[in-house]
Amino acid sequence: MPQNIPVVENILSANDRVAGENRARIDAAGVFSINLMASPGAGKTSLIEQTLPRLTDRLRVAVVDGDIATSIDADRAAQAGAGAAIQVNTGGECHLDAVMLHGALEQLEVTRFDLLIVENVGNLVCPASFKLGTHRSVLIASVPEGDDKPYKYPGMYRGVDALVINKIDLLPYVSFRMEYFELGVQALNPGLVTFPISCRTGEGLESWIHWLLERARK
Amino acid sequence: MPQNIPVVENILSANDRVAGENRARIDAAGVFSINLMASPGAGKTSLIEQTLPRLTDRLRVAVVDGDIATSIDADRAAQAGAGAAIQVNTGGECHLDAVMLHGALEQLEVTRFDLLIVENVGNLVCPASFKLGTHRSVLIASVPEGDDKPYKYPGMYRGVDALVINKIDLLPYVSFRMEYFELGVQALNPGLVTFPISCRTGEGLESWIHWLLERARK
Repeated sequence: MPQNIPVVENILSANDRVAGENRARIDAAGVFSINLMASPGAGKTSLIEQTLPRLTDRLRVAVVDGDIATSIDADRAAQAGAGAAIQVNTGGECHLDAVMLHGALEQLEVTRFDLLIVENVGNLVCPASFKLGTHRSVLIASVPEGDDKPYKYPGMYRGVDALVINKIDLLPYVSFRMEYFELGVQALNPGLVTFPISCRTGEGLESWIHWLLERARK
Repeated sequence: MPQNIPVVENILSANDRVAGENRARIDAAGVFSINLMASPGAGKTSLIEQTLPRLTDRLRVAVVDGDIATSIDADRAAQAGAGAAIQVNTGGECHLDAVMLHGALEQLEVTRFDLLIVENVGNLVCPASFKLGTHRSVLIASVPEGDDKPYKYPGMYRGVDALVINKIDLLPYVSFRMEYFELGVQALNPGLVTFPISCRTGEGLESWIHWLLERARK
């Protein structure tokens, strides 16, 4: 339906304006922020659960959780030690947008924090199109999802600043050709920094934590 | 943005009209059709690959594959023995809609087939909102995605006619509480027919094949 394209463009440019306001607010507070994206079940909340205890006494972290329904993720983030955990139910929308983050920031005393983690809705398509105003976009791929995902969701892989490859403990039990996967990643996003990890065993998490600390420590 | 709601409603009602046309065409051809939905990497294409060889000499199958990019899935379906495999690239859209299926049906001699499998875009949100005109909606959940998905994506779980639980061979290696998962499923969709399977080992596939044969055999 070509007549819808201008509407979509208007929505996106309005979104970008609000994303700019979010960024100004986050910058003024001196907070480093990431937009965490992934398929459903790739491990966004698990990564947050593994990350927060490793940052205790080093960074004060706020988490904003986007979901279609429930507050399961925000509850888990609070349990894991987030200084604040705000759930945004998107009311059926398959992604967070800048206005939703704007609303969440209204509820946060942003200046109290060093790091803001925004957990997007589980989806490899639409979240890539909606800037939120965060500093970095981080994608979590997961081994059991399969090695063809960069090829099939190029928009997502092209737009991110870091890639976490989760569930590497499952490599012996699934067919996942790391070389084929990385070939796709490098074609779309040359030089992308990549963290192979397992939230289950803790393997590989040090490099990820180091990457966060380098950027968020004041 | 409340002013957008009428636009969304218009799009959905236009979609439903085309879905009705698709259904009439499929019915006239005497074809049984399913809309296969799941997260990225839950195993839609793998299920098709495991299903087609088990139907040889019993059903003539056509596959329509929706994706953001590439023809990987249609190639795999053709390789697995589909009588026809048509790739629909959605041009960035995160779901198939009835118009896209309509276009694919134009390219198929539908009367040549007994079963039409439509593989939707990997996404647990938007595909649930767009009727295609198929007879049954089938969702694939996958064990490594986690047991909280019914709670977090209720719209999808509420609207389907059958549920395949794939990758049960990974149950020993991940934390997945089947009871908690099924509790959510039954709350949203009481009595939903469920097939626990492994596309890797072949476990559980007989019941799924039986379900298809019962419906598609003329």
